[in-house]
Amino acid sequence: MVNERMHGLGAEPSAIRELFAYGMARKAEIGDENVFDFSIGNPSVPAPDAVKDAALALLEQPAVSLHGYSPASGVPEVRATIADSICRRFGIEASPENIYMTVGAAASIAISVSAVTEPGDEVIVISPYFPEYKVWIETAGCTCVEVPAHVPDFQPDIDALAAAIGPKTSAVIINTPNNPVGAVYSRASLEALADLLSTKEAELGRELYLISDEPYREIVYDGIEVPYVPNVYARTLVCYSYSKSLSLPGERIGYIYVSDRMDNAAQVVAAVAGAGRALGYICAPVLFQRVIAACVDEPSDVASYAANRALLTEGLAALGYEFVEPQGAFYLWVRALEDDAQTFSDRAKAHELLLVPSDSFGVGGWVRVSYCIARDTIERSMPAFKALMEEYRG
Amino acid sequence: MVNERMHGLGAEPSAIRELFAYGMARKAEIGDENVFDFSIGNPSVPAPDAVKDAALALLEQPAVSLHGYSPASGVPEVRATIADSICRRFGIEASPENIYMTVGAAASIAISVSAVTEPGDEVIVISPYFPEYKVWIETAGCTCVEVPAHVPDFQPDIDALAAAIGPKTSAVIINTPNNPVGAVYSRASLEALADLLSTKEAELGRELYLISDEPYREIVYDGIEVPYVPNVYARTLVCYSYSKSLSLPGERIGYIYVSDRMDNAAQVVAAVAGAGRALGYICAPVLFQRVIAACVDEPSDVASYAANRALLTEGLAALGYEFVEPQGAFYLWVRALEDDAQTFSDRAKAHELLLVPSDSFGVGGWVRVSYCIARDTIERSMPAFKALMEEYRG
Repeated sequence: MVNERMHGLGAEPSAIRELFAYGMARKAEIGDENVFDFSIGNPSVPAPDAVKDAALALLEQPAVSLHGYSPASGVPEVRATIADSICRRFGIEASPENIYMTVGAAASIAISVSAVTEPGDEVIVISPYFPEYKVWIETAGCTCVEVPAHVPDFQPDIDALAAAIGPKTSAVIINTPNNPVGAVYSRASLEALADLLSTKEAELGRELYLISDEPYREIVYDGIEVPYVPNVYARTLVCYSYSKSLSLPGERIGYIYVSDRMDNAAQVVAAVAGAGRALGYICAPVLFQRVIAACVDEPSDVASYAANRALLTEGLAALGYEFVEPQGAFYLWVRALEDDAQTFSDRAKAHELLLVPSDSFGVGGWVRVSYCIARDTIERSMPAFKALMEEYRG
Repeated sequence: MVNERMHGLGAEPSAIRELFAYGMARKAEIGDENVFDFSIGNPSVPAPDAVKDAALALLEQPAVSLHGYSPASGVPEVRATIADSICRRFGIEASPENIYMTVGAAASIAISVSAVTEPGDEVIVISPYFPEYKVWIETAGCTCVEVPAHVPDFQPDIDALAAAIGPKTSAVIINTPNNPVGAVYSRASLEALADLLSTKEAELGRELYLISDEPYREIVYDGIEVPYVPNVYARTLVCYSYSKSLSLPGERIGYIYVSDRMDNAAQVVAAVAGAGRALGYICAPVLFQRVIAACVDEPSDVASYAANRALLTEGLAALGYEFVEPQGAFYLWVRALEDDAQTFSDRAKAHELLLVPSDSFGVGGWVRVSYCIARDTIERSMPAFKALMEEYRG
């Protein structure tokens, strides 16, 4: 006997991870250049030189203090640097005490959900949504309530959210810029959401938290505005990660910022620390805590992703594919050529195209195409996309 | 409202962390050299040069693959290297598939407990025990059952364990070399424990897992044998960490090894992967995965701790303190000079001696004295220990 839920989660990896693993095996079989792997969000842009420079400099420091434990919430100077950066960039009086360093965005969200819910509560996600949200919500003993985004702009559907919020609702998770559709929530959308949450708080007599998952904050196109969520809704926990902005997904480094504008911020900060402890986190990896402090205002290389986006969207449009024009992140949400996304993904595989079916994101009929890959792969994949289209359209 | 349990865990940090935080504040107040901080297990021995050399060399590799995601279970070559080392050192046919890289020992134990229990089960710990075990057991929805160690040798008390194992028991956590008492479980003790577990498995008709927490494996004195637990009991999960052996506690790197000799190893491996996913772990930090692979057989600097041990035990013995002679790890378990360990710890504080009271380890009347500190601090602390003794003995 082992834990049944854990066994299920381990034996059936996420659709993304499964396709990624298939891709690795397939590349070993027929050669890297013959597989068009659009499965995972592993940045193709290298970490900036500043990351390497900072790491090399840090490694010259005395090893005992360099590699020793940090407080559970993080190295004090690192938290101060991040708080200062938030303050400068977003005009909010961020306190270092409200920053809790984490082992990446996944840890940030798992900890945040466990901190602000009780078992039996409901947490709302906006579909399509990153599938692991549901896993972490269920770890907290809560129910994942899926509310479809407004179509065709994939902004939050305020009426649908109003209908879904009830006496068991504790939190809403949003992700803007969005994985998988690439939508960036407008200021108007966020303000409408904030109004709704405030109204419902008063109506229900309970706190409603907004958990804002923001690893793609810096990756946006055409100069679009990404409003800072704590400036729009006070009861916000920002879950940030440097995985995408600094191309460090494997180093697992990010933070939770509990908005200073929240009336019960100190209580939430304590619950976050407790949840981190309960889930087995001691502190975030200390070398990379210090690396990101040194690189806190390093710009992300958006130009590469913008070029990929143009190449992919122009190519697929010319072939007759339908998709959502992404405003941010590095995923293209493409309409499957048949209702069953899994079958479509399987048929794409026969052309060596690895496209993640939309079902695990909470909706049918689409695939997610990650374009944080080598430009050359996108170029060379076009004949395969063409053949796939011809197979369907004859 | 926030989660009540999480708030409690965050608002009331562990006794160890609390004393550590007090020490940091006190040092800022009266100077580092005036506080004798025996609170935390932060190694005073620097990481070996091989760690720095490996990190510097790795940082010259292309950043995209260096810092990219690894599979959830770890970098394949790293797992192979560790499996090979286990095989060479302990003569067990360890498979890379049975190694799951973790964000340190805390993650290893939290994941292991969640993997092999169902909510409502019981997990046995041998007191005195590392206090966070109880936190992680309760996160899995289980009950922590404390069974006192055999006194005065602090080996497992087989009769007491036999009485404690029942139809809800899923696992026993052991920690050898032991934090806090420094005992190393003998081969005879482990064999008796294995016999008991096998008998009880047959009697109860359910699997009984042994979770072996081994961060101090390499830190032992006088050439004492540390038997490899999977060689003694098949249904063992080894929770290893490089925090102590390579002095990297802040980098959070370790692994779980699911014994190949376990009849349901594949099932447990899947449950471990699922539990890691459920608790928000994506992969262990990749740079340090590769660093530890490069340093897998690097010897630990035990000599420094041995010298500290001699200095401390000789000094305290001469002053009339009673303690358990440690065979491994770097903690001295000292009898408090009154029944109430908390009061004793508070009175020690007045002499600037930071000694962790035993209560949160599950027993009253002792303090834990970490001697992984600067030798000089131990030397200079002796007058304070003397004054404390005189205060009690008059």
